[in-house]
Amino acid sequence: MPIQPGQPLDALDTPQLVIDLDVVDANVRRLFAAAKQRGVAVRTHFKSLKCAGLARHIASLGGENFLCAKLSEAEVLADAGLSDLLIANQVVGPQKMGRLAELARRVRLRACVDHPENVEQLSRAMRTAGATLGVLVEVDIGMARCGVEPGEPALQLARRIQDSPGLRFDGIQAYDGHLQMLPDAAERREKCLQGLRQVLATRKLIESAGIPVAVVTGAGTGTWEFVAGFEGVTEIQPGSFVLMDCAYHAVRPEFGCALSILASVCSVRPRWYVLDAGSKAISKDFGMPVIKGRPEEKVTRLSEEHTKVEAEPVAVRLGERREVLPAHCCATMNLHRQCVAVRRGVVEACWPIEASGRYD
Amino acid sequence: MPIQPGQPLDALDTPQLVIDLDVVDANVRRLFAAAKQRGVAVRTHFKSLKCAGLARHIASLGGENFLCAKLSEAEVLADAGLSDLLIANQVVGPQKMGRLAELARRVRLRACVDHPENVEQLSRAMRTAGATLGVLVEVDIGMARCGVEPGEPALQLARRIQDSPGLRFDGIQAYDGHLQMLPDAAERREKCLQGLRQVLATRKLIESAGIPVAVVTGAGTGTWEFVAGFEGVTEIQPGSFVLMDCAYHAVRPEFGCALSILASVCSVRPRWYVLDAGSKAISKDFGMPVIKGRPEEKVTRLSEEHTKVEAEPVAVRLGERREVLPAHCCATMNLHRQCVAVRRGVVEACWPIEASGRYD
Repeated sequence: MPIQPGQPLDALDTPQLVIDLDVVDANVRRLFAAAKQRGVAVRTHFKSLKCAGLARHIASLGGENFLCAKLSEAEVLADAGLSDLLIANQVVGPQKMGRLAELARRVRLRACVDHPENVEQLSRAMRTAGATLGVLVEVDIGMARCGVEPGEPALQLARRIQDSPGLRFDGIQAYDGHLQMLPDAAERREKCLQGLRQVLATRKLIESAGIPVAVVTGAGTGTWEFVAGFEGVTEIQPGSFVLMDCAYHAVRPEFGCALSILASVCSVRPRWYVLDAGSKAISKDFGMPVIKGRPEEKVTRLSEEHTKVEAEPVAVRLGERREVLPAHCCATMNLHRQCVAVRRGVVEACWPIEASGRYD
Repeated sequence: MPIQPGQPLDALDTPQLVIDLDVVDANVRRLFAAAKQRGVAVRTHFKSLKCAGLARHIASLGGENFLCAKLSEAEVLADAGLSDLLIANQVVGPQKMGRLAELARRVRLRACVDHPENVEQLSRAMRTAGATLGVLVEVDIGMARCGVEPGEPALQLARRIQDSPGLRFDGIQAYDGHLQMLPDAAERREKCLQGLRQVLATRKLIESAGIPVAVVTGAGTGTWEFVAGFEGVTEIQPGSFVLMDCAYHAVRPEFGCALSILASVCSVRPRWYVLDAGSKAISKDFGMPVIKGRPEEKVTRLSEEHTKVEAEPVAVRLGERREVLPAHCCATMNLHRQCVAVRRGVVEACWPIEASGRYD
C-alpha cells in the first residue's frame, strides 16, 4: 500500500528513511539568513539530497540554486523545474556531450574544468549543438584530487576557455573537502583561510589579465562560515547542513539531525538487540550510527541488514521501533529509492530519490 | 539511449556496472559441480545479486533455489518465476505479515525465527490467510547477532513451531558469517567445524524429541567446502562466489572476479589520476578496490564520486577507461539500479537491479 500524507509514522513498515521537515526548515533558514547577512549567495549541494521533492522544498524556502556532483543529478533537477545549476566536477567523455549540450539549452548551466583537452571537447560539443556552457576553472587548494594548481595554471586554463567558442568563462571553483570534518574549529578556520588566500590571489591574477571573474564558489557545511562574507567570494556550496548526520553534528552542533532510519527490533538477546536495517540502508563510511534519544544504547556492529545494539539492561520488546541517526547523510540518501517527509510524526509526503544509484 | 545487446563495452558511458558472464559461468559451474559431488544442495544467496536477470541466469545453470535476506528480495525472485525461496532472517512486524502470507501462497517459502512472539505472529498471519509457511530455527553458532543458542533453546522453539497452525517446522539455519573472511584457511576450517558440531548436536536433540529435521542449511563463500559433504548438512548457501570481489578473491582465489565498474579518467595530475566513480558506486566497506590488470596503479582514495589512483609514471590520457574491481560485491550491487552483462567485451544484456535500495 503506498504511503499517504496524514499517516502516523508508527503505521509505516520498516526500514523507512525519514526526513523531519521541521528540522530541515530550521537548518535551511539558519544558514540562508546568515549567508544573506554576509552578502554571499548559497548554492545547496544536491549530492547530499538526491531527491527532487526535497530540492523543491528548499527552493520554496528561497534556495533555488543548486550544485550537482554529476550530470545525471543536474538532469533530475532540471526535470524538477530548477534552472540555475552548477556541476561541481569535470564532465568528460563523448557519451555525455550531447546530454550536456541539451541541458545547457534548457537551464542556466555551468561545469568545472581542469584540463585543456576537456575544454576542447566541451567547446566542440556546444558549438555543434548551438549551446553555451558557463565554465569554472577548478583550483586545487589542498584536497589533492581534481583541479589545477592556483595561480598561473588557472590563468592559462581561463584564457583557453575564453578563447573557446560555445564556452563562457565564469570564474573559479575551489572546494576545501579535506577540511570539512576537522574537529578543531580554530585549525579548520586557519587552513580554510590559507586556501582562500590562494583562491583570491588567483582571482586577481586572472582579472589583471583582463578576464572578468563573475563567480568564486566553494566551502561546505564544515567551513561555510569562514568563507561567507570573505571579500571576493560570491557563493558558498554546502549540502549536508540540510539533513545533517551524527558525524557532522559533532562539528556543527547548531544544525539539527533531520535524517533517520526508522527500524524495528527483530531479535532480542540478553545483552543486545538487533534492528532490521544495516549498512545497506545506513551508510557506515563515516562511522557508526547512533540510536536517537537513547544514549545508553550503543551500536556495536553494522552488518548488511542488521544493526546490533548493546545495552545494560536490554529493555526492548520484539517489534519495538528505534530511530537510527546515520553518520553520513549523503551516502545514506544514496542507499534508498524513496524517503518519507514528516512533521511531528505525521507523514507530509513520500518522495522518490530520483538520483540515488545514478553516477553518470 | 538504452544499452543494447551487441554493443561493444567501449561504446558505453561511464560509470557502468559490468558483469562478465564467462567468469560467472565458470564460478557457478565450479561450485555447483563440487556440491553435487559431495551430495549437498546449493541455495544461492540473492543478497549478493539483487538482480532478477542474474538470478534467472543462475537458474539456467541449474541453481533454481535462492536464499534472500529480506522479504522484498523474495518478492522480486517470485516475480521472476523462481519458486523455492528461503528468507535467511526473521520477518517481524504487522505490516509485513500480509505480504509474507501472500508470498507463501505463491511459492515454496521458508523463513527463520529466533523468538516465540515471532512464531505467534507468523502463525496468526498464516492462519488468517489460509497459508502455510516453512520455518527454520536460526541457531547462533558464534556470529553473536540473531538466533537462539544451540541445544535446548533451539528444541524449545522447534516444539513451539510444530504446535503452531499455519507453520511447518522444517529445520535449522546456522550461518557462520563471522568466519567467511578469516585469511588463515586452517583456522577458518577449525572454527567452522566447531560450529557445525553444535548444529548437528542440536539436530540430534530435536530429532530425539520426535521432531523431524528436513533441512540443515548454512555456510558462505568462505566456508562452503568445509560444510559441503558434512553428514547431516543438507544445503549450503553461498552468494559471493557468483560475482566475487577483490577481498573475497584473496580468500578464495579459485573463483574469478566477474564484477567491475567501468570508469573514465576525468582528471590527470603529475603523480595521480582520478576516475569518475567513487564510493557511491564502489562500496568501500571491505576496503579499497583495485584497478584490473594494472598492479602498478594503486587506489589511494575513494571519495563519493572519485577514485584517486597513484602511479609512477602516470601514463593515462583524459577519458581513458579503467575497470575497477570492488572489495565487496554485495554492497556494490546494492549501489546501482542496473548492470550490463557482457561476454568478451560485448553486451549480452542490460538488467535492472530490482532489489537494490530495498530493505523491507
